[in-house]
Amino acid sequence: MVSPMYTLYVGTFIQLPRTISPDEKHELAITRGALWVSVADGKIKGFDWSVATESDLQTLLQRHGWVVDGSSRGRRSSVVVKLVRAREEEHEFFFPGFIDTHIHAPQYPNTGLFGSSTLLDWLQTYTFPMEASFASPAALPHLPPPQAYRAYSQVIARTLRHGTTTAAYYATIHVPATNLLASLAHKKGQRALIGRVCMDNPATCPSFLIDESAEASIAHTQAVIDHIHALPPLSPDDHPDGKTRLVQPILTPRFAPSCTPPALAGLAHLAKQYTPPLHIQTHISENLHECALVREQFPDCEGYADVYDRFGLLTPRTILAHAVHFSPRERGLVAARGAKVSHCPASNSALGSGICPVRWLRRGGVVVGLGSDVSGGYSVSLLEGARQACLVSRLLPFVQQPGREEDGASKDAGDAVISVEEALYLATRGGAEVVDLAEVVGGFELGMAWDAQLIRLGGFEPAGLWTDAPKSNVDVWGKESWTERVHKWVWNGDDRNVKAVWVQGRLVHGFETEGAGARWTGWNWTPGGYGALPG
Amino acid sequence: MVSPMYTLYVGTFIQLPRTISPDEKHELAITRGALWVSVADGKIKGFDWSVATESDLQTLLQRHGWVVDGSSRGRRSSVVVKLVRAREEEHEFFFPGFIDTHIHAPQYPNTGLFGSSTLLDWLQTYTFPMEASFASPAALPHLPPPQAYRAYSQVIARTLRHGTTTAAYYATIHVPATNLLASLAHKKGQRALIGRVCMDNPATCPSFLIDESAEASIAHTQAVIDHIHALPPLSPDDHPDGKTRLVQPILTPRFAPSCTPPALAGLAHLAKQYTPPLHIQTHISENLHECALVREQFPDCEGYADVYDRFGLLTPRTILAHAVHFSPRERGLVAARGAKVSHCPASNSALGSGICPVRWLRRGGVVVGLGSDVSGGYSVSLLEGARQACLVSRLLPFVQQPGREEDGASKDAGDAVISVEEALYLATRGGAEVVDLAEVVGGFELGMAWDAQLIRLGGFEPAGLWTDAPKSNVDVWGKESWTERVHKWVWNGDDRNVKAVWVQGRLVHGFETEGAGARWTGWNWTPGGYGALPG
Repeated sequence: MVSPMYTLYVGTFIQLPRTISPDEKHELAITRGALWVSVADGKIKGFDWSVATESDLQTLLQRHGWVVDGSSRGRRSSVVVKLVRAREEEHEFFFPGFIDTHIHAPQYPNTGLFGSSTLLDWLQTYTFPMEASFASPAALPHLPPPQAYRAYSQVIARTLRHGTTTAAYYATIHVPATNLLASLAHKKGQRALIGRVCMDNPATCPSFLIDESAEASIAHTQAVIDHIHALPPLSPDDHPDGKTRLVQPILTPRFAPSCTPPALAGLAHLAKQYTPPLHIQTHISENLHECALVREQFPDCEGYADVYDRFGLLTPRTILAHAVHFSPRERGLVAARGAKVSHCPASNSALGSGICPVRWLRRGGVVVGLGSDVSGGYSVSLLEGARQACLVSRLLPFVQQPGREEDGASKDAGDAVISVEEALYLATRGGAEVVDLAEVVGGFELGMAWDAQLIRLGGFEPAGLWTDAPKSNVDVWGKESWTERVHKWVWNGDDRNVKAVWVQGRLVHGFETEGAGARWTGWNWTPGGYGALPG
Repeated sequence: MVSPMYTLYVGTFIQLPRTISPDEKHELAITRGALWVSVADGKIKGFDWSVATESDLQTLLQRHGWVVDGSSRGRRSSVVVKLVRAREEEHEFFFPGFIDTHIHAPQYPNTGLFGSSTLLDWLQTYTFPMEASFASPAALPHLPPPQAYRAYSQVIARTLRHGTTTAAYYATIHVPATNLLASLAHKKGQRALIGRVCMDNPATCPSFLIDESAEASIAHTQAVIDHIHALPPLSPDDHPDGKTRLVQPILTPRFAPSCTPPALAGLAHLAKQYTPPLHIQTHISENLHECALVREQFPDCEGYADVYDRFGLLTPRTILAHAVHFSPRERGLVAARGAKVSHCPASNSALGSGICPVRWLRRGGVVVGLGSDVSGGYSVSLLEGARQACLVSRLLPFVQQPGREEDGASKDAGDAVISVEEALYLATRGGAEVVDLAEVVGGFELGMAWDAQLIRLGGFEPAGLWTDAPKSNVDVWGKESWTERVHKWVWNGDDRNVKAVWVQGRLVHGFETEGAGARWTGWNWTPGGYGALPG
């Protein structure tokens, strides 16, 4: 038996084209045909958008000398391909995987718990105690606690189920638990940036959740970097700068108030020890009380962004979560440094932080992606994130935005509105740029990794014939265009519509095929060469 | 075989207590025990919150001389009861059914389609053409079109699946299709107010969707009222004023600009011909352009609410949808007349209408419920409505609210915040008051109708063991209090968590029992005495 050399995906492919100008109108690129991915390295090797019929497909197979896996035809010397179809009758389509540019893995068990609190008291009540529970047991200081296995397995499983193929995770300060998160993502096949959280300022950090010193912050971070770099690469022909390494480290000063100046400076220095410099992630300008705290703590910095800039933390590989209350000057500074913004609308609304002016940021040259910010955000779903990005943008014209009018942002409501297409752009292409993987994921160009989801809206399920578990919360009546079907998916879809998810060409959730041959292979997939879990 | 006299519900019951003052903090009332409902009339006949164990349950049965349906014990003379359990191990609980105080049934097929438009152009592009398709075929003027059967069956099925036991529906101007909606709600067992839409102003209504005259508006409305009043009552001992009639008519001037003064006056007159006066529903102060249109059309009215008041349409049985842009004076007028407000946050955000100041309205004495406003709202789910009510209330402090500060509303963010509990109050008790059924539905008091949903959060489904259809998007880790579990339900729950729905004691969706005896009885339930469908 010959192993397939390619997986051939056949059906409708929908993606967001790269745009040049942030004021360009985003449109869906909808193509029907075939696309093939190398089994060896999970990269897109070709596509043919002229394949419209079964006969076209046979012609394509013959032209390439391909034989479909399991079929009796073909000679011994033929190249075998595995066929995966998006079925038109079930309104199925291939879509790029979502990229969550900001999510706190240890907070996942708290999802939906924050009551009516706002950022700073929510941290004290819910977040810090939960994160503290990821400390290793005193008797077994090199082992993560059982809690970490359960929470981290679950958050990876849930995000994959919702179509998140890449996630920029915050972990906690704890090295063994953070290493576990990295190993689990690697084993389960999710592309991930893993950040050990640095917080060493006794003035703002709780005594039960704090690095012993700035030096300890750096040393513990180094330990996690070394663990992650020791995880095996995905394929021998990996990207020369390591960009297609499935799991990468990301330096994570929690936010300015939680770190001492030596820690901030030390992390910036550490980033530069690598080529390319390491990723960096932190929070910025989320909440007005937080902004006041930063002004108080760093009185000689003109703005919040200046604090990070002073320490060299505003780099083209820096992810700044939130950026709700930027001044025009801060926007300019962040754009000039090439740092990126993670827009987390579900969190910003739930915690009453405000509305991030995404279009205003993008017009000012800032690259923006979407983040779930679990558990400040209440949902791991980036589809929910896209929905919320659309919704809050429509409320932005009612919000007082001092200083922004002067800067050319007119008060015309339409200027603020994020369309469904733009929200999906942010969730895919925008996110890819934020995590510095724009040439690797976020779309279906030649040579990119096959990080994708197969969306199934499902046929119309007429009232009265439903069984216990409806396949979908989306009703397609039959006459909708593909664009309208995508809109319906964004407004009412959920994880039920995610039929399959691939990362770097490997199935990491769901079903590839229908009928008798269908099998759930999500976690049974055991690629060779993966390192053992830590401990 | 003896038919059960009561259905005995056993497990955890959660509801929102009635509150006296709108500034009182809403809290969940969580009780565990047994509650029994008469099979004959669907009303709550008793409860016992001391039933904690199986032994307590046996004692209760013995004390009342009850025998559980299907058990071999008991004498011939025993009273038979059917047992329905909320299972603790699956985190199940009984909760009052949701009351959707504003939903456009014919727009359901358009759910999720509105792009980036706002109210007035959305009406022209999506809504009016869809509604026009509910006209009877020219050759069969007394029959609804096939489209109406499909759309109306589906919207009732979908709303029930999401736990909506009562809905205040807008239909269209068409009598046969509107009568069909009433008959379908009656047959499928959903409590409903059914409104034939009145729109007779040629200056604002499209030529393909308009009443021929004000007289025709009234006459067609009368035809629908007569049809609905001819539907059989639910039980012989029906409420003397007809309040527990499953389906009731509601007068529905679309909104001020779409009606001529004679039509508005005629509808107000028609309402008073009945005892109690008929329900009325309309739209108010949704969008700033709409408000400007009303000022232009009724230059001698001081405000939007004054237009309705002038024609006698502000009554204690009037539902005003939206009320986003009320002046303090308008709030006072509406409160003085006792008219109610339907808050539709999903719609107000999706169409960029603004944020309704719910707490400010309630502090001013206005009764508020929740509406989905499909398809201006993108979801039939009132759980989504509750979620959105919480979210937008947290953004309200950032919105410019001219005139509201003077009226005592402070700018303190906390003053605007709707808690999870308050949102659930609005979705149940508040909605009941809005549809003038506060003593009938919305809670579990003695004598109230059993309009309820059985919520199943489900046991923890560990990563890697999931099958194709996960039971729930909510992860209960095991240590959450009931209050925390309810919060998790509100933030991440959906129709998968609605295991069963009852209206007036009758199962209208889902399963009542588990295991071998489980059967899906949703639409197979065929009560006696229901009128034939029209046509």
